Amino acid sequence: MASSLFHDGLTVHTQSHNYPILITEKSSTVISTMAAQVAPYITGQQVLIVTNDTVAPLYLQPLQEQLAAQFTVAACVLKDGEQYKNQASINQIYDVLMAQHFNRDVTLIALGGGVVGDMTGFAAASFMRGVNFIQIPTTLLSQVDSSVGGKTGINHPQGKNMIGAFWQPQMVLAEMVTLQTLPARELSAGLAEVIKYALIMDVDFLTWLEQNLPAMMALDLAVLGEAVKRCCEYKAAVVAQDEREAGLRALLNFGHTFGHVIETHEGYGNWLHGEAVAAGMVQAAELSQKLGWLSVNDVARIKRVLELANLPTTPPPIAVDTALSLMGHDKKVKQGQIRLILLKSLGQAVLTADFDESLLTEVLSQYAP
Amino acid sequence: MASSLFHDGLTVHTQSHNYPILITEKSSTVISTMAAQVAPYITGQQVLIVTNDTVAPLYLQPLQEQLAAQFTVAACVLKDGEQYKNQASINQIYDVLMAQHFNRDVTLIALGGGVVGDMTGFAAASFMRGVNFIQIPTTLLSQVDSSVGGKTGINHPQGKNMIGAFWQPQMVLAEMVTLQTLPARELSAGLAEVIKYALIMDVDFLTWLEQNLPAMMALDLAVLGEAVKRCCEYKAAVVAQDEREAGLRALLNFGHTFGHVIETHEGYGNWLHGEAVAAGMVQAAELSQKLGWLSVNDVARIKRVLELANLPTTPPPIAVDTALSLMGHDKKVKQGQIRLILLKSLGQAVLTADFDESLLTEVLSQYAP
Repeated sequence: MASSLFHDGLTVHTQSHNYPILITEKSSTVISTMAAQVAPYITGQQVLIVTNDTVAPLYLQPLQEQLAAQFTVAACVLKDGEQYKNQASINQIYDVLMAQHFNRDVTLIALGGGVVGDMTGFAAASFMRGVNFIQIPTTLLSQVDSSVGGKTGINHPQGKNMIGAFWQPQMVLAEMVTLQTLPARELSAGLAEVIKYALIMDVDFLTWLEQNLPAMMALDLAVLGEAVKRCCEYKAAVVAQDEREAGLRALLNFGHTFGHVIETHEGYGNWLHGEAVAAGMVQAAELSQKLGWLSVNDVARIKRVLELANLPTTPPPIAVDTALSLMGHDKKVKQGQIRLILLKSLGQAVLTADFDESLLTEVLSQYAP
Repeated sequence: MASSLFHDGLTVHTQSHNYPILITEKSSTVISTMAAQVAPYITGQQVLIVTNDTVAPLYLQPLQEQLAAQFTVAACVLKDGEQYKNQASINQIYDVLMAQHFNRDVTLIALGGGVVGDMTGFAAASFMRGVNFIQIPTTLLSQVDSSVGGKTGINHPQGKNMIGAFWQPQMVLAEMVTLQTLPARELSAGLAEVIKYALIMDVDFLTWLEQNLPAMMALDLAVLGEAVKRCCEYKAAVVAQDEREAGLRALLNFGHTFGHVIETHEGYGNWLHGEAVAAGMVQAAELSQKLGWLSVNDVARIKRVLELANLPTTPPPIAVDTALSLMGHDKKVKQGQIRLILLKSLGQAVLTADFDESLLTEVLSQYAP
């Protein structure tokens, strides 16, 4: 399996099965090696590659052609963007599967970012009550976050990721070279999740990021590979302990409750997910500071590292009532109480409902119109 | 938990969890005991009852009112019929869940037949990546078949049950008294699945049915309860060994590949599922006879027992090519070969691709236009 190419092999352990994450840094051979690396993980004869109209022109044709030497391969090209993460796109995938007469033996390959991965995973989870799938994440965000851990799904008009399933891929192939074709704004959005791991789990990684973010912004593939590997290790460790988000895994959503409010309010696709999470992490940090857990300097340090990655640190204007109401739809609401992930200190997160709601209102009202 | 009411308590063992099937035969108290029997299995404060416009006038109001004493209860009333087993109905369920601001704590209750159960189960499997649900099957078909075993899903315009998930309920409550409000044609359709268990698993049960079908047709609740209990035992035993239909469980689809062809060709809702399975079992038996596994008398005996239940033994006219092509979409197709469940003898089924396709064509051409 061409092991010399791999930066490192990680294994994710879940209830259903274990699967590898392959991270490769080679810059020139992506087109010729992608197919060879995923082929050993395809069990049947049928393959459907799901991608979008941005990624397709870059990588679809060579991947499809090379796999076609060994498998029956079809493709489904969706429209690019979070606003298409909906039932209509899932139906497009089903329609191709049905038109091809594909069956339980089919393997779906998600070739693209988090939206493609989440939708392909949900289509795989629900087609014929579950078929295999493989993730080839082509954005930093999906490489460090959504491609690992088995969360799949789509948005409901009233809320993000409301429809979905836990469904684990057969393998994840993260090719650093795909980041060379990623728009700078998308790279920054991915760095938001990288910074998130540092804030919730490892203050030493925060220091490492403060030193290495400039190299990552300049697309140093080796440094990016190192960061992706670290993030996947953090995530794999969390998922192994708590696949279905009974507790620990919820911490990975740091900044996301505030972030979901921004995304829903602004309409999907106008703020990138990572941008919303960045501003959301600032709000969560500010609430943590009001609770006495972070210092003013800690909050300033968080804003600075986000700025190093060219990320927003201020949410758009949203009325307090609107924000609270949108939070009421969040999956982390338990028995009617808003629960948030906050920071006990830099590198240590906690899921808690144990805060004075007036402090939350104070944070939100800073950003009210 | 009012155990004196229960005919018998069965437990289904699955990978995710074990759950009880309660079968009650009491004829007068259904309205007052349904809520009391399901309440102990509701873990959160939120309940959504999903039913259809045929069942709602019979049982919804009392169930909803009684649960409302203890829980926040909403209802979603779908249109009745297999033709509504589609994405639009699932979206109706999601929309109510979102409008109510229900979250991961919600329990969905399926109050109705197999279509309601399958759709409610799939909505539960996919809302917020999975919430609890309870089955209250009100048709014989769903009591003996679809409510047990965790298969959930909807139809795709090109194929039955193509979209779905394996998702186990927290409990199943089968109240025999609900069969008193079931149309005779639906009762017969349910008996097709009852007869199926006898044909694939237990020739002694076939003899029992030959003696007891008249009492069941006359709505003797005790005899019906006995039959439901036996069928649930068969099914629970199979599901415990093979939840995801890797092998053994496929045998429960005896008659279904032929039956799916009938349902798809005639349009969902024109032939009831059980009627299509009945005619499909005759075709599967005829192929088994051509292979030398059943005698002519065995096939005649199968037709007679189906006739005792007022079931069709002849499919509608369908061209051979059409039938074969529709079979190509069946989930049991493996590596392009049509696999069928056939009878080695009465009471013993086998999943096999090891037959001459010309014999299958012979069977199908008997019913060509």
